[in-house]
Amino acid sequence: MATAQTPPAAMTHPGELTASAFAHTRAMSRAICEPLEIEDFVVQSMPDASPIKWHLAHTSWFFEQFILKPQLRDYAVLDPRYEYLFNSYYQAVGPMHQRPARGLLTRPTVKDVLRYREHVDEHMTELLLQRADDEHVHTLTTLGIHHEQQHQELMLTDLKHALSRNPLQPCYRTRRTDNVPGTPGPMRFQNFEGGIREIGAVGKEFCFDNELPRHRVLVEPYALGDRLVTNAEYLEFVRDGGYRRPEFWLSDGWNTVANEAWTQPLYWDETLAAEFTLAGRQAIDPAAPVSHISFYEAEAFARWAGARLPTEAEWELAAANLPIAGNLLDLGRLHPQSPSDDGSTQMFGDVWEWTASPYIGYPGYRPLPGALGEYNGKFMCNQWVLRGGSCATPASHIRASYRNFFPPHIRWQFAGLRLARDL
Amino acid sequence: MATAQTPPAAMTHPGELTASAFAHTRAMSRAICEPLEIEDFVVQSMPDASPIKWHLAHTSWFFEQFILKPQLRDYAVLDPRYEYLFNSYYQAVGPMHQRPARGLLTRPTVKDVLRYREHVDEHMTELLLQRADDEHVHTLTTLGIHHEQQHQELMLTDLKHALSRNPLQPCYRTRRTDNVPGTPGPMRFQNFEGGIREIGAVGKEFCFDNELPRHRVLVEPYALGDRLVTNAEYLEFVRDGGYRRPEFWLSDGWNTVANEAWTQPLYWDETLAAEFTLAGRQAIDPAAPVSHISFYEAEAFARWAGARLPTEAEWELAAANLPIAGNLLDLGRLHPQSPSDDGSTQMFGDVWEWTASPYIGYPGYRPLPGALGEYNGKFMCNQWVLRGGSCATPASHIRASYRNFFPPHIRWQFAGLRLARDL
Amino acid sequence: MATAQTPPAAMTHPGELTASAFAHTRAMSRAICEPLEIEDFVVQSMPDASPIKWHLAHTSWFFEQFILKPQLRDYAVLDPRYEYLFNSYYQAVGPMHQRPARGLLTRPTVKDVLRYREHVDEHMTELLLQRADDEHVHTLTTLGIHHEQQHQELMLTDLKHALSRNPLQPCYRTRRTDNVPGTPGPMRFQNFEGGIREIGAVGKEFCFDNELPRHRVLVEPYALGDRLVTNAEYLEFVRDGGYRRPEFWLSDGWNTVANEAWTQPLYWDETLAAEFTLAGRQAIDPAAPVSHISFYEAEAFARWAGARLPTEAEWELAAANLPIAGNLLDLGRLHPQSPSDDGSTQMFGDVWEWTASPYIGYPGYRPLPGALGEYNGKFMCNQWVLRGGSCATPASHIRASYRNFFPPHIRWQFAGLRLARDL
Amino acid sequence: MATAQTPPAAMTHPGELTASAFAHTRAMSRAICEPLEIEDFVVQSMPDASPIKWHLAHTSWFFEQFILKPQLRDYAVLDPRYEYLFNSYYQAVGPMHQRPARGLLTRPTVKDVLRYREHVDEHMTELLLQRADDEHVHTLTTLGIHHEQQHQELMLTDLKHALSRNPLQPCYRTRRTDNVPGTPGPMRFQNFEGGIREIGAVGKEFCFDNELPRHRVLVEPYALGDRLVTNAEYLEFVRDGGYRRPEFWLSDGWNTVANEAWTQPLYWDETLAAEFTLAGRQAIDPAAPVSHISFYEAEAFARWAGARLPTEAEWELAAANLPIAGNLLDLGRLHPQSPSDDGSTQMFGDVWEWTASPYIGYPGYRPLPGALGEYNGKFMCNQWVLRGGSCATPASHIRASYRNFFPPHIRWQFAGLRLARDL
Repeated sequence: MATAQTPPAAMTHPGELTASAFAHTRAMSRAICEPLEIEDFVVQSMPDASPIKWHLAHTSWFFEQFILKPQLRDYAVLDPRYEYLFNSYYQAVGPMHQRPARGLLTRPTVKDVLRYREHVDEHMTELLLQRADDEHVHTLTTLGIHHEQQHQELMLTDLKHALSRNPLQPCYRTRRTDNVPGTPGPMRFQNFEGGIREIGAVGKEFCFDNELPRHRVLVEPYALGDRLVTNAEYLEFVRDGGYRRPEFWLSDGWNTVANEAWTQPLYWDETLAAEFTLAGRQAIDPAAPVSHISFYEAEAFARWAGARLPTEAEWELAAANLPIAGNLLDLGRLHPQSPSDDGSTQMFGDVWEWTASPYIGYPGYRPLPGALGEYNGKFMCNQWVLRGGSCATPASHIRASYRNFFPPHIRWQFAGLRLARDL
Repeated sequence: MATAQTPPAAMTHPGELTASAFAHTRAMSRAICEPLEIEDFVVQSMPDASPIKWHLAHTSWFFEQFILKPQLRDYAVLDPRYEYLFNSYYQAVGPMHQRPARGLLTRPTVKDVLRYREHVDEHMTELLLQRADDEHVHTLTTLGIHHEQQHQELMLTDLKHALSRNPLQPCYRTRRTDNVPGTPGPMRFQNFEGGIREIGAVGKEFCFDNELPRHRVLVEPYALGDRLVTNAEYLEFVRDGGYRRPEFWLSDGWNTVANEAWTQPLYWDETLAAEFTLAGRQAIDPAAPVSHISFYEAEAFARWAGARLPTEAEWELAAANLPIAGNLLDLGRLHPQSPSDDGSTQMFGDVWEWTASPYIGYPGYRPLPGALGEYNGKFMCNQWVLRGGSCATPASHIRASYRNFFPPHIRWQFAGLRLARDL
Repeated sequence: MATAQTPPAAMTHPGELTASAFAHTRAMSRAICEPLEIEDFVVQSMPDASPIKWHLAHTSWFFEQFILKPQLRDYAVLDPRYEYLFNSYYQAVGPMHQRPARGLLTRPTVKDVLRYREHVDEHMTELLLQRADDEHVHTLTTLGIHHEQQHQELMLTDLKHALSRNPLQPCYRTRRTDNVPGTPGPMRFQNFEGGIREIGAVGKEFCFDNELPRHRVLVEPYALGDRLVTNAEYLEFVRDGGYRRPEFWLSDGWNTVANEAWTQPLYWDETLAAEFTLAGRQAIDPAAPVSHISFYEAEAFARWAGARLPTEAEWELAAANLPIAGNLLDLGRLHPQSPSDDGSTQMFGDVWEWTASPYIGYPGYRPLPGALGEYNGKFMCNQWVLRGGSCATPASHIRASYRNFFPPHIRWQFAGLRLARDL
Repeated sequence: MATAQTPPAAMTHPGELTASAFAHTRAMSRAICEPLEIEDFVVQSMPDASPIKWHLAHTSWFFEQFILKPQLRDYAVLDPRYEYLFNSYYQAVGPMHQRPARGLLTRPTVKDVLRYREHVDEHMTELLLQRADDEHVHTLTTLGIHHEQQHQELMLTDLKHALSRNPLQPCYRTRRTDNVPGTPGPMRFQNFEGGIREIGAVGKEFCFDNELPRHRVLVEPYALGDRLVTNAEYLEFVRDGGYRRPEFWLSDGWNTVANEAWTQPLYWDETLAAEFTLAGRQAIDPAAPVSHISFYEAEAFARWAGARLPTEAEWELAAANLPIAGNLLDLGRLHPQSPSDDGSTQMFGDVWEWTASPYIGYPGYRPLPGALGEYNGKFMCNQWVLRGGSCATPASHIRASYRNFFPPHIRWQFAGLRLARDL
């Protein structure tokens, strides 16, 4: 990923800034694909995942559909059939190829898809140049950039899942060895005051519609763990019969444990000593954050530990003034790591943190107008909020008000937990 | 149901009060069964439902398991195998018969189950007499009474579902004809102030653990419809393509509409003019509240209507000072009815009202200790709160702080909606 | 079953004979129900089975649909809705209630169904009297009688299955104790000559269309076991790892063993020493024929034993001249029994014998005209022929040419096997 | 496919003949892949199908497992993990990768698999040279060649299915245009005598174990259509309500029609005028044989046409003395074609012909010893015999005694039908 540098922070013109971010983001998606064989682009290992090829095309489709077609005069689509093939879930745009069949498409080939990307890139560059002062174009492009960044994370987690289903346990990229694992001490709880506070995006920078409106919340005094829960701590839970004792579990979680025969996190070996990673099979680092657990497991662990998950408001208030730094995609580790000894609280990066908050709209929430209103709003049911980003999240993508969301049973994301307590 | 009168309100001794409420509740369950044939007790028409026979036995098991066995010296169970057969979901009690197979049990017979009820009744009566001043026994018995009242409502909704699956469309009880249907005017919105308020049970009277602790909430100014949404209004939604237009729906809801081929409320005919009721097939009363809709449908209707569902806090604050009166089970109508012209807002009775609130624990929530802790807490995931009771809810069972909960797709409960708006 | 005697063999008039057989058969169905509680009539324990109530109604519907309606002038059906409810699979008659939902019907009640039976009985009696010399009426009535006899066996096997799913393991009828178990010696093989022979019904007596036409077959010399395979023999197979060694199994069978986690015959305990019977849980008689095994198990056992299953032609040629005697329904044992020491070869009764023959039409096979053509012909795919009748088959129902058929995975019938070998 | 010529017919030494056939067959598999993109090798479009990559590897595994490992001293496998990955269903060899997950394997890559093929080819060539006179080696190699030929046909049908699931309807190879479509006259029936005849392989040439033993059969006089049923004839059936009239169908077939919503052959458009082919979407040739129909459809058509399917004995006796010529793979058409006017009866090639015969072992059938015994024998249940080969069958692979078999519902093979009648 050496070719995909973080863009220079200071640029004079907002139009140039957008164009640069666009170029950088598009390059990053290709950089993620560098270690791949053609075969790796095709497979869909479960309905929740998509082929890499599809991600590359769909992110291009997004720019084409929501920016080029409405904004660039005389824009000609490369292939009209792509509108159907690469629409993900935008009913207002029109009918779409069914999600679970994405892995059946051998054509367009990877080469075709890269040509599609080039087509879109060329026209986007043209548009951004022509309309350097058009704020609407910048806003839409920024949305497209953040959309593509979300898919960058999905490319890595979908790829990890697909490789994990292969008995050969292939390696995506060998592990970087420049990380000196820390030796985290016992978890401590840090106290926070209650009161009427505000959460939600401030609105100067880009945010998704689901981070708005910024609004008042009432929180009672609380405490948060000063670091993430580690593999060693989670292993204690496993060894204490965590997966065999219904008293720790939500009813749906317990049924899932039984039906899916869960006995440990998704990628752990039966030895409980090794796990599948993007660098192939590796020894489990006891000090690293536990990852690839569902909300059910996070919630059960917290109950076993005599604690609870934080609400999203509690998390956001604690994170609001922290620098956005940590084990994010830009670091290139692609795996959660043990905390360094510099006092990091791991609020950003490593693993997404399951919260106690169901994913619903903030009071007064309004989706974007038109088809883009389907981006976030229609998923506000039976999902839970995660916060903080992971080792597969671009640093420029995450922020304190960012609301990620997934159904409670999913495990293929880099997701773990932090403990919370009432005061 | 003539034999099951509401208990006299004023009694001097709390022990007598409990004993009387116990006797009344147990008699009500039998009264509900009066119109039934033996065959009607056996069937389980879907995994969510249970046979009437099972309800009669399980409610008795509850008293036996949680009161008689621990509290009554030398109590001998009638049949030790019933512990397994009639445990619903209490993992801490021990293994249990699997839920979807409840309808396969022809034995114990209805007669056997009634004998079991008598056995439990006799010993409960003995215990309540012996321990007239034992508050713990009263508290547990009151819990058992409210538990049985919940099952009374389920008996009626499960029975309705089972009868509805029969092409003969059998009648449970002929319709009462003494209701003069009202002619509701246009819905008006009633405004409520915002601020820091308190919700949750006050705690003097019985409540479930999920209504506690009473706690502070922040609400912004809001408005609620002054009556429930009617069949006529819902029909407009249907005729406006409600079930064919994805823009109104949550994504999960839209998938359910497609997969289940929903085109109207559960019990409506394809004519949109008649519906299945506990009195057989009947013309739809346009002025009566729409019922037997899922959360998805309630939420889609509200969006179509340019409104939203109320949060549970908004609902409870509006209901807190209202008398508990309405079309509840005691009225014996067993069907939602058009509002009378006396200004009733239908906050209690007729249909449960879907809210915008996912069902989670209140801040500081603690389940009851022991197996009874499984009563409510373990279901706090992927369910939504409903408020206000229905025409199948005993009047003495409902209150402003009462939190009912069901998954968003279910339709066999008497559930409808009230609109809400921001101010 | 004391009330349902075998009809006197010698009667002068064929019309009287049919009327008598009709009355006897109808009485037998009711006699089978004598030990039942109302609840036992309602349940459908799997889609393959039907409620007892349904069997009682459907067999009446058969007489009504195929005889009374076309033959009896001014016949008025008792309830026109029964045509839909109690049609099993006759597409030419019209639409029908879906099979897996038969257990959801609480109405018509058992009482209603018995009234329906009486209605049909009265009119059938009237018709048989009026048309004592009408051969067509006799032929159809005889078909209806044999149809009802098939359902008598299904009533017993469906009931057994339903009771077996109840943890209380209820007893249908206590075991008769007048059977002195034999002590079968080692199995011997009896040789048969090959050549061009004839099989199929001779046609003087009643037969189903699938037993026709009588036709020439070429058989090579073969040998058949002189008795059925016993529980003791089958236990050896189990203990020899029969259910864990793929080399004995057809591919489909091995998949079924894995998917269904089969480790023994359907009703055997995990102790391998007791089994569920119509008399409740009983010790397994080692000398009795193994029963309730699928074709897959029969075939695997035969391979393990170094033998094979007989073809249906081999079986029929061996049985052609034997008296129809054995442990059939009339004996009232309702369970396979060890062979008496009188040299019985158990060709008739005890258990149906899986053959090596897929169920297809005989050369030149023609189904009956009209809807009755659906009786047998349309099932000639993916089923296997069984021969010889069981302890639940009426003696007057079985014959050497009788072809029973079931899919290879089913186990709830009284089905076992006899070994065969090439010479 | 120009590089894969039919091997020269006349060679002196049997060892050289085998070596040449081996080389030719291996080259043909690669030739089939020439038009493919890498992406096309990866996909598994349904559990019945396999990725092209898997076919290439599995056929190599077959030679390695059954010939190189036991026969070639010091043979070292290329990768020991391939034994697990590329074992199809040979339980006696050891555990295997689960079939429905074959499409999840992105590694080994196509390049890796081609290297594996080269490795096997080199060692096979070495072995065949070393052991030029070893008949056992020749026999096994010939089995491996025929095995690979079966997979050549599957490669084409699996590929066709995968491409058909792509809305882009990609073309595998453009259609050859040198075929002058014939104008078949009305079908005539050709009569055949009955009697005791012999079928099964004569045994001089290679055959599969399921073609043995050659044995006597009794056939009655019969007639066969002098050509295959055409698209035009089948269209008449469709237009006559064939898919809406239960009277033509086996019960299982009718359920399948309903559950799968079948209204026409697998690859036909809804226009009934065009179909998906290996050359993309093409107009349906009315004179060409109907193809891609299930046994259910073939059987229903025959009933509608007042005829029946031939038994496999009838077919084989009619074919026994015909030259093996027709529209087979070597012709390169890859699509059934209308009969030329030279009097061809289309007995070989074009489409496999469903017969009326369930696939069971011939009398006295013995599977090969060891793991190879699993090749054919364990599938003798719930499948039906097809005869004659198709446009995707290598000419050197087919013969009159050849028994192909598939379950009755499958449609992705080139399968059609010929009518038969009793005389």
